Amino acid sequence: MGTYLFLNVFLPKKVCEMEKPLILVTNDDGITAPGLRALIRFMAEIGNVVVVAPDSPQSGMGHAITLDNTLYSSKINIDLKDGAVAEYSCSGTPADCVKLALQELLDRKPDICISGINHGSNASINVIYSGTMSAAIEAGIEGIPAIGFSLCDYAWNAHFESTGDAIKRIVREALKNTMPKGVVLNVNIPKMGDEAAKGIKICRQARANWKEKFDKRTNPMGKDYYWLTGEFELLDKGEDTDEWALANGYVSVVPTQFDLTAHHAIQNINNWNLHEL
Amino acid sequence: MGTYLFLNVFLPKKVCEMEKPLILVTNDDGITAPGLRALIRFMAEIGNVVVVAPDSPQSGMGHAITLDNTLYSSKINIDLKDGAVAEYSCSGTPADCVKLALQELLDRKPDICISGINHGSNASINVIYSGTMSAAIEAGIEGIPAIGFSLCDYAWNAHFESTGDAIKRIVREALKNTMPKGVVLNVNIPKMGDEAAKGIKICRQARANWKEKFDKRTNPMGKDYYWLTGEFELLDKGEDTDEWALANGYVSVVPTQFDLTAHHAIQNINNWNLHEL
Repeated sequence: MGTYLFLNVFLPKKVCEMEKPLILVTNDDGITAPGLRALIRFMAEIGNVVVVAPDSPQSGMGHAITLDNTLYSSKINIDLKDGAVAEYSCSGTPADCVKLALQELLDRKPDICISGINHGSNASINVIYSGTMSAAIEAGIEGIPAIGFSLCDYAWNAHFESTGDAIKRIVREALKNTMPKGVVLNVNIPKMGDEAAKGIKICRQARANWKEKFDKRTNPMGKDYYWLTGEFELLDKGEDTDEWALANGYVSVVPTQFDLTAHHAIQNINNWNLHEL
Repeated sequence: MGTYLFLNVFLPKKVCEMEKPLILVTNDDGITAPGLRALIRFMAEIGNVVVVAPDSPQSGMGHAITLDNTLYSSKINIDLKDGAVAEYSCSGTPADCVKLALQELLDRKPDICISGINHGSNASINVIYSGTMSAAIEAGIEGIPAIGFSLCDYAWNAHFESTGDAIKRIVREALKNTMPKGVVLNVNIPKMGDEAAKGIKICRQARANWKEKFDKRTNPMGKDYYWLTGEFELLDKGEDTDEWALANGYVSVVPTQFDLTAHHAIQNINNWNLHEL
């Protein structure tokens, strides 16, 4: 941030803006999460970073938005050394954060929106439940190039630093090329020790589901309650999938869309007897 | 329910099961919502209805699930006259309700899962934010035919009775035919007076977004907060879209998928310089 202000003194504002892209950074694990702080540091090497992130963890929030409740936002400084130009916490969901950033907090449309780094996988069917990806999708709906990053390691202190090369490479390429219309990227990074990933693979979402198990307990007042737990079940042996790439040490990039129409199924349903009421 | 018990006395259980499909009914407006109560009545004409629905409104919840909190469920009777075999309220989201129903509350896999009738549109981009559709998608992920129904009328006392013919027709066809794999149906019904819809159209999801406006206010303690409001912006003039069908008095049926891969974009992203780290 020191450098940024220093540059502003000596260079006309326009030059700064031309040289550095404006990067909106958000996540679903909350503004203090180590994955977000690492992402801010990586993005500060590429552009001017503004953070708008939830004030508390929002995992599993899917594409929830806050309709029946109030939203609060505070301009705060979690750690100036990470290099963000400005940071805002928001009481809402990841999708709320992006909406609020675009409409109220940013002076101009960002050049790209980056969400993450999520603590845990958002590959295959997890994309459906992912708050990280809902933020990216929300930006995509607004016509902004957007990428969600996840590290397949649920530990709070996962080894985020090792993800920097892959993340910066993908963001730089996304800024240089044109994101296809109606598409955002879902990037998952295999759990790594000190070694780097083998490379990056462009993939499709693997077919999978969760075999839920509810852990049933009784509270001190005698009332039954449940914890949702489950086991991931891969239903897809394709070598062009994100799960295959991750299992084989590659970073997976899935182009992800928010037109949910199953175009291939329209003809099939047209054959049902539905056309007259 | 009287009839159902009566039949159970005189017919072997197997025959009852063969004759009547098991229908799981849920929604996102909560178990007391008039739209759900109407749906239960319609479905009780077709099969044995078990209701598992949120104990409070969950609109805009997208595909949220409850990971960090406990889930409660109670067997209750809101209105026996509606004809459900059993009703359960659940403290979680619509997706939680479906997971809990399938794993804990139902004796066997339901033949179909029906979600709704939502108070308001889930057409075009609204599908992304929809708790109603997230319940249907959750059932679809588990391999159960599933349909979300919405009436394009936000009034609590909307004219749900007029939707019965279309809804029963679509559910009967879905039970008779085979739902394409990986597909659930997103059905929206135009706001109607006493007249019926003109017919049913199989559609694609229209391109659209919401132009958000945040209504900024100050609370009694002097702190600023926001209400999320917005205007729907249709970006698509296609006559094969759900929005076109609804605007012209037709019920729209969009086959909707949860493989979010933008398959057409894989080649494009493959041309980026990403393959070596």
